[in-house]
Amino acid sequence: MADVYIALLHYPVYNRSGAVVTTSVANMDIHDIARAARTYGIKKYYIVTPLAAQRKLAGDILRHWQTGYGARFNSSRREAFAITDLCATLDDAMGDIASLSGCTARLVATGARLRGRISYAELREKLREHSGAWLLLFGTGSGLAVEILDRADYSLQPIKGPAEYNHLSVRSAVAITLDRLLGI
Amino acid sequence: MADVYIALLHYPVYNRSGAVVTTSVANMDIHDIARAARTYGIKKYYIVTPLAAQRKLAGDILRHWQTGYGARFNSSRREAFAITDLCATLDDAMGDIASLSGCTARLVATGARLRGRISYAELREKLREHSGAWLLLFGTGSGLAVEILDRADYSLQPIKGPAEYNHLSVRSAVAITLDRLLGI
Repeated sequence: MADVYIALLHYPVYNRSGAVVTTSVANMDIHDIARAARTYGIKKYYIVTPLAAQRKLAGDILRHWQTGYGARFNSSRREAFAITDLCATLDDAMGDIASLSGCTARLVATGARLRGRISYAELREKLREHSGAWLLLFGTGSGLAVEILDRADYSLQPIKGPAEYNHLSVRSAVAITLDRLLGI
Repeated sequence: MADVYIALLHYPVYNRSGAVVTTSVANMDIHDIARAARTYGIKKYYIVTPLAAQRKLAGDILRHWQTGYGARFNSSRREAFAITDLCATLDDAMGDIASLSGCTARLVATGARLRGRISYAELREKLREHSGAWLLLFGTGSGLAVEILDRADYSLQPIKGPAEYNHLSVRSAVAITLDRLLGI
């Protein structure tokens, strides 16, 4: 079984107009995605933003739940935040994974607009067969910029429901993706 | 195919100590769950709270996205909020469904602590076979109170990942449940 990591990128991502921007870290993204990551056995959840002030703010929130009053108030939140980390760039996350797992992570891009080249069933099978590290990339805003997509080894099919509408929150998209790939 | 409705109950639910309480409506629950509901073809998403002041606040938020500036700013959010409604009690939601569908909805309880009597595959099959109305119930706080569970026709198995941890946010739980039951 592969070691699966996830990263939530706040840069480079598109805004609604198609410009490449840096989005703000949202508190609910920290909590909901950490809890889903912990539920599905993710090795580490990286919150990626190049803005030092945003990393400072998110770091204060993380520490509250990792070692502060929050850790005593809610031990299940502490468990989820124990695998949550901050970094400035995707390369930093890749470097951390390399130091933890001893190998270069395969990169999987996700997004509502991707013309995915790999299905959930195919990727699920690969994760089961491989023993290396895999990093699933999720974009905030209106999705990952092309420079990230170009680096990915795979891009995953978008999540589709029975309706034509596909505007899930990134929190819902992460939850559904992890359930499809790693749920039992 | 059944008509599927969902309700997010803010009362009666348990708090962390096991007392029955009324929780506050969280803005992110309105947005994330409306977007997931719209994605999976849910007929209507009911936000249920007995507190008139909370319904007033949530109603102001809904109207912003249904008919106010938000509807012009973000049409996909308007679409999601078009199926979102507020009511005071589960009975009010049941009454609305009866007036829309002409039948009494079958009730399905969900929760991390339930010893579910129906699997996702079984319920998925029922929803495919039946033509009536079904209402999936989700609890805020630490889950639906027993008086709601006792009314349910079915209780759904909890969501399990490969880890022992099961503390998903209700937003993630709704997304995963809808994907398992109605995803394609």
